[in-house]
Amino acid sequence: MSDDTASRVAAALHAREGTSKAFGIAIEEVREGYARIAMTVQQTMLNGHDVCHGGMIFTLADTAFAYACNSRNIHTMAQQASIVFVAPARLGERLIAEAQEQALAKRSGVYQIMVRKETGEPVATFQGLSRSVGGEILPQSNG
Amino acid sequence: MSDDTASRVAAALHAREGTSKAFGIAIEEVREGYARIAMTVQQTMLNGHDVCHGGMIFTLADTAFAYACNSRNIHTMAQQASIVFVAPARLGERLIAEAQEQALAKRSGVYQIMVRKETGEPVATFQGLSRSVGGEILPQSNG
Amino acid sequence: MSDDTASRVAAALHAREGTSKAFGIAIEEVREGYARIAMTVQQTMLNGHDVCHGGMIFTLADTAFAYACNSRNIHTMAQQASIVFVAPARLGERLIAEAQEQALAKRSGVYQIMVRKETGEPVATFQGLSRSVGGEILPQSNG
Amino acid sequence: MSDDTASRVAAALHAREGTSKAFGIAIEEVREGYARIAMTVQQTMLNGHDVCHGGMIFTLADTAFAYACNSRNIHTMAQQASIVFVAPARLGERLIAEAQEQALAKRSGVYQIMVRKETGEPVATFQGLSRSVGGEILPQSNG
Repeated sequence: MSDDTASRVAAALHAREGTSKAFGIAIEEVREGYARIAMTVQQTMLNGHDVCHGGMIFTLADTAFAYACNSRNIHTMAQQASIVFVAPARLGERLIAEAQEQALAKRSGVYQIMVRKETGEPVATFQGLSRSVGGEILPQSNG
Repeated sequence: MSDDTASRVAAALHAREGTSKAFGIAIEEVREGYARIAMTVQQTMLNGHDVCHGGMIFTLADTAFAYACNSRNIHTMAQQASIVFVAPARLGERLIAEAQEQALAKRSGVYQIMVRKETGEPVATFQGLSRSVGGEILPQSNG
Repeated sequence: MSDDTASRVAAALHAREGTSKAFGIAIEEVREGYARIAMTVQQTMLNGHDVCHGGMIFTLADTAFAYACNSRNIHTMAQQASIVFVAPARLGERLIAEAQEQALAKRSGVYQIMVRKETGEPVATFQGLSRSVGGEILPQSNG
Repeated sequence: MSDDTASRVAAALHAREGTSKAFGIAIEEVREGYARIAMTVQQTMLNGHDVCHGGMIFTLADTAFAYACNSRNIHTMAQQASIVFVAPARLGERLIAEAQEQALAKRSGVYQIMVRKETGEPVATFQGLSRSVGGEILPQSNG
């Protein structure tokens, strides 16, 4: 049931996001404290060195982070993130970001996000710190 | 003269980037080890909480970082970055990212980027680690 | 007067810290939102590659961060930090860490700390995120 | 066999480190790309708020990182690290740091380190970027 809530929250966030539509982000799986999403590198995502802009890779990872840290239907914000770029991603490649919860303490959470190609090759690793600010994203169902 | 090179390199990167066109990034000033650029928050940049997506703020900061760390016309890549989100940015606000070089050692460089609103209010602070990979971005002029 | 408070808070923290005594950390200057401290690399601070352990450089930077973010006499904790190691430090070298406030928003603060040798050569750059938890470090004087 | 090399490299680094002796760091297990070590919080590790100094928690995590990223007997340095402090550690508590390799690409590596209490409660999460500089730590055995 809580995994079902997590899925519905992610779907609601995704529907509201300008970025998910603009970048073709697709949800693959969301559970409590977990999210896996995908995006294909488009021409508009390339940087001046003709590989995927680090900002676009960050955006994908950050979106997975948002779905994982909001998965309990408590409004939660990214406060800090650190990313290491491991390998370049190229036009047409499909990138998969997988977010996993590492620690929760009071209103803070820490999440680890790996961005990989479909081959499994790592593209970036991301560590994010979230802070819940309270309030719900979805109204509680009364079923 | 080196500041002129820095400007021309940034202009060349900007012209090649899909992202700069897609997001309306404007170059304000580029010097050796320094860049200041701007972007206005658009509908497609909003996240599910209706404020500017962290990924878009990161992209702006990362672009300023790229212009500053490539300013000597040596092909240089972002290897790592850490960002703290200080305050939300809203639809229509103009964000200014200012990148400054903090340290250079062999092929590594460290850059500090502040993202602010036009009022001067800080939105995010970003620290980036670059690595030069060699090769030129612009052919050397022989004038 | 607030700079005087900042100095007295740092002195109180320094007196209570096991680490400052163990590592010979000396306060050079503390003002509101600013701290500069120093430490000399000792034998017990070396790592297995015979240079100063990254953890000791981090500790120095983190201590400067603590003095700067507690400088208003409000109990404040480090929540996150990112460090880039730029150059090794060797036995007997004196390291100076300088912390400056970059942004404050509600209970969060962001600080930039540079660690340099006495020659000015950069050793590490550090970005820290603090969170005030309330309560005073020093009792308020009524003078 | 490579796990045996990893153990012997960690033991050699540990023997050379001033810090491991000074802080009573004990090796629990080292394998290729993996290390688990422990340290008990001592009086000299306390900060001005009477909990374990963030620098000491960082040092423990950074030491596990060093053992993991040097585990192939190739001289490797920490280049960058990001740490989130999740919960305070107190005098007498035994802390366990576990480092795992996340990605390797050319000379760069990314490692995730969790610091926990013996109860399993998370204290800090750490993400580190390493760079191999070449050369061996131990002479190759010819057995």
